[in-house]
Amino acid sequence: MHAITIPEPGGPEALVWAEVPDPVPGEGEVLVDVAASAVNRADILQRQGFYDPPPGTSPYPGLEVSGRVAALGPGVSGWAVGDEVCALLSGGGYAEKVAVPAGQLLPLPKGVGLVRAAALPEVVCTVWSNVFMVAHLRPGETLLVHGGSSGIGTMAIQLAKAVGAKVAVTAGTKEKLAYCAELGADILINYREQDFVAELMKATDGAGADVILDNMGAKYLDRNVQALAVSGRLAIIGMQGGVKGELNIGALMRKRAAISATTLRARPLEEKAAIVAAVREHVWPLLDAGHVRPVVDRELAMTEAGEAHSVVEASGHVGKVLLVTP
Amino acid sequence: MHAITIPEPGGPEALVWAEVPDPVPGEGEVLVDVAASAVNRADILQRQGFYDPPPGTSPYPGLEVSGRVAALGPGVSGWAVGDEVCALLSGGGYAEKVAVPAGQLLPLPKGVGLVRAAALPEVVCTVWSNVFMVAHLRPGETLLVHGGSSGIGTMAIQLAKAVGAKVAVTAGTKEKLAYCAELGADILINYREQDFVAELMKATDGAGADVILDNMGAKYLDRNVQALAVSGRLAIIGMQGGVKGELNIGALMRKRAAISATTLRARPLEEKAAIVAAVREHVWPLLDAGHVRPVVDRELAMTEAGEAHSVVEASGHVGKVLLVTP
Repeated sequence: MHAITIPEPGGPEALVWAEVPDPVPGEGEVLVDVAASAVNRADILQRQGFYDPPPGTSPYPGLEVSGRVAALGPGVSGWAVGDEVCALLSGGGYAEKVAVPAGQLLPLPKGVGLVRAAALPEVVCTVWSNVFMVAHLRPGETLLVHGGSSGIGTMAIQLAKAVGAKVAVTAGTKEKLAYCAELGADILINYREQDFVAELMKATDGAGADVILDNMGAKYLDRNVQALAVSGRLAIIGMQGGVKGELNIGALMRKRAAISATTLRARPLEEKAAIVAAVREHVWPLLDAGHVRPVVDRELAMTEAGEAHSVVEASGHVGKVLLVTP
Repeated sequence: MHAITIPEPGGPEALVWAEVPDPVPGEGEVLVDVAASAVNRADILQRQGFYDPPPGTSPYPGLEVSGRVAALGPGVSGWAVGDEVCALLSGGGYAEKVAVPAGQLLPLPKGVGLVRAAALPEVVCTVWSNVFMVAHLRPGETLLVHGGSSGIGTMAIQLAKAVGAKVAVTAGTKEKLAYCAELGADILINYREQDFVAELMKATDGAGADVILDNMGAKYLDRNVQALAVSGRLAIIGMQGGVKGELNIGALMRKRAAISATTLRARPLEEKAAIVAAVREHVWPLLDAGHVRPVVDRELAMTEAGEAHSVVEASGHVGKVLLVTP
């Protein structure tokens, strides 16, 4: 088969479409003929040499795919050759074939095409595990989503609205904020022109956010704590604004608040399977019913993965950038 | 009645036993004739002028008492005049009488005398709400308790052992550590002579602590994150080591860990009542059966509250210092 390889870490040109050995599905794994994958920030860090794949996983980038089941490894039941699926991966999605633990497969939701389904696994699992399983967002509460127009952001807005929460978003342009509003966001904050703490407090009568989904890390840490409501929960899923920041424990304590920081990729198989099962139970019906949908910025050929990375690095996109196998 | 008043913030001599008006139990409150109160760090901060009582609460210090029900306010059921009780307070415990919301009363456990019961409410509610209700310590997990010989520490050791957890403690002397061992602590770390992260890792084969109960705040923040296990939970309940500290979000994320910071005093009535109800359900049977007991360093007359504060400030004590009404 072919896959996107990284002979030497570097810029987008470091991604090379090359012939590599076919993966072989092991015990409990399924071989998928890939229709499409999607770009995640982690892929860019991996390309730059900052985020090696966990031991025992594929060396190729790509944390999610859609496609068709091509073969079953030993001990797999519940899936059949030819099934249309999408899947959460620990790597290896930028390829014509990938072997996936069966617990990380999901069926195609009704009304979502095979290629577009590649936009779902990573964002749905990240948002569900953090906003709902860890931070327990409840109906009537307020969620603040940083980067509301990103793949994660567009899914977080839709899922939070679907459960009856109020949603505030930050984004860097009027156009991105308008798109967040179309998806249901109630409070729109342009982080380039406005102070997100002040705007959020104004819009919530001083109450703040019950849950914050943050991709900025250190840069926003202090302001996120300021923006939390009493009993608020800050869920950090990215560190685009740095790794180490000053924490005002006194402010956290006055609010009886909590901070969590997680990644999906490094979780053990059984935790991933539990998240995928929860997503299938709680989110798939919303997708089947059309209440929630994948948001796709564009589809590019997987052979042009470098261009796709450039698009994501420039942050001009809204939703996911997909990579379609040739 | 008489109460300990604070005419001017300051040292232990700022505490003055003086005649004050009797409290009157309001709607849903119970008037308690106080047998004893106990010293908490928050009382010392209040004496120093750093921790004003929440609005609407008694101006006198004292976050817990034991005593007898003297009168019922309107709308109270389930309690009768003469009942022996202990109670969690928002203040006012250093006094001959105190009015308490009925949801914060607890019956005397079997085999615990009336005076010694004053050692229970604050530590039991703090440990239960943080270690179990927030951080969800489970059987087989490891709890690290800083200040293992304190009132909080001695209760945390006993409750964690009672549910089948492994317990590591830090303390500053051999004698304090020996006492922690008597209460059941498995891993003993002298923080003056040893690096608690290294010792804990050695004793847990590199796994670390699933839950940490911390009273130090900023000073221990970075090392506490280092000491956490994967999926670990750091519960901060005090800031004796400072308010602002550097948080390594990357380290937190690699462990998929969480940090919470809480106080009991500022919680609304319904949250306090929920904690007291949980404590009555889960901890009172352990006290009734003698599996867990209050640890009392000494009993002093309430008129000598200043001396009691000096004892706690010198940190030579083990367990609680009680103040007995004259």
